[in-house]
Amino acid sequence: MPSALILIADGTEEMEFTITYDTLVRGGVSVTSAFVPDVASGTAAVSPPAAKCSRGVRILPDSYLDLAHCGPDKFDLLVIPGGAKGAETMSNHPSVQELVKKYIESNKLVGMICAGSLAAKTSKLPKQPLTSHPSVKDQLDKDFEYVEEPAVVSKNLVTSRGPGTAFPFALTLVQLLCGEERRAEIRAPMVFPANTPF
Amino acid sequence: MPSALILIADGTEEMEFTITYDTLVRGGVSVTSAFVPDVASGTAAVSPPAAKCSRGVRILPDSYLDLAHCGPDKFDLLVIPGGAKGAETMSNHPSVQELVKKYIESNKLVGMICAGSLAAKTSKLPKQPLTSHPSVKDQLDKDFEYVEEPAVVSKNLVTSRGPGTAFPFALTLVQLLCGEERRAEIRAPMVFPANTPF
Repeated sequence: MPSALILIADGTEEMEFTITYDTLVRGGVSVTSAFVPDVASGTAAVSPPAAKCSRGVRILPDSYLDLAHCGPDKFDLLVIPGGAKGAETMSNHPSVQELVKKYIESNKLVGMICAGSLAAKTSKLPKQPLTSHPSVKDQLDKDFEYVEEPAVVSKNLVTSRGPGTAFPFALTLVQLLCGEERRAEIRAPMVFPANTPF
Repeated sequence: MPSALILIADGTEEMEFTITYDTLVRGGVSVTSAFVPDVASGTAAVSPPAAKCSRGVRILPDSYLDLAHCGPDKFDLLVIPGGAKGAETMSNHPSVQELVKKYIESNKLVGMICAGSLAAKTSKLPKQPLTSHPSVKDQLDKDFEYVEEPAVVSKNLVTSRGPGTAFPFALTLVQLLCGEERRAEIRAPMVFPANTPF
């Protein structure tokens, strides 16, 4: 069974987090969420706190971010959702930067959506095709081949734009981990409107 | 500021809950979530527990369902999300049935999505246009004028189909509560793919 680690922090965009988590589970992926604290606040508590997301939904993470248990030897996919404040916390966190590099080097998948794509820059990934939320485009378009597509696959880095592209992002990750047939199987019962372009 | 109450229970579909909550907040609606316990388990605890949603995301509700504080004198909109087990708990709960009738009688909005539409039947709403998840169509198509559209507005009852229609459902609710202009304003930064039909 493929496995995925999705990061979450205060300020994470709850639709991007939840759509990705839920769609991966529907695809048959074993999903774990890991809380990324502000660097300043440390990780002294044993259980992670509820993440207060960008529009007020409070989500209980499955675990704390922990280099020993979050590496590419444990999961097939690392996901960094957006939400301005959550993405800032994640992209500036040294452990997240280290994880992004390790997953890419180990040929495991890394998914970034919305402002989460800033982690590609802070992790110093090489210039390659990438997208993000339009609000952070000017922080990324010099260092990457910026494209404006719902889901951009560049080898094992998958990037996307915002809550409105979270479904094509998540379905693309299911396709890469579980195959095209599985993607089609789980898409039907989600009942997208006719002519939905993904 | 318009206000909305969204119900949540163990087994609620977390994408339907989160997309509706987040999109309403983006629209400028004051949103509160209320936990609906299994009738059997009672409501003895002071703070509601985390709802264990249909694909494993755990969400902390803002409050308990409580007739005195959840009525149409307090909120402009009542939302009943899907997820088979959560919708069963809600639609069979006498307080939820009473609230649905009171909101409709008070000319406040009621939104139901996916299996949440079963609450229209258990609340004995009169025959009118309605939609739901295809999996519960045969429980509803004798008592209602069943239609297969992403969002069906029948006076103050708004129904929808599944996670794939949660965005048009939530945007329709924003439009009804806050106007067409506000709907367009919040839609743009969500970055839907080109040619998305809502």
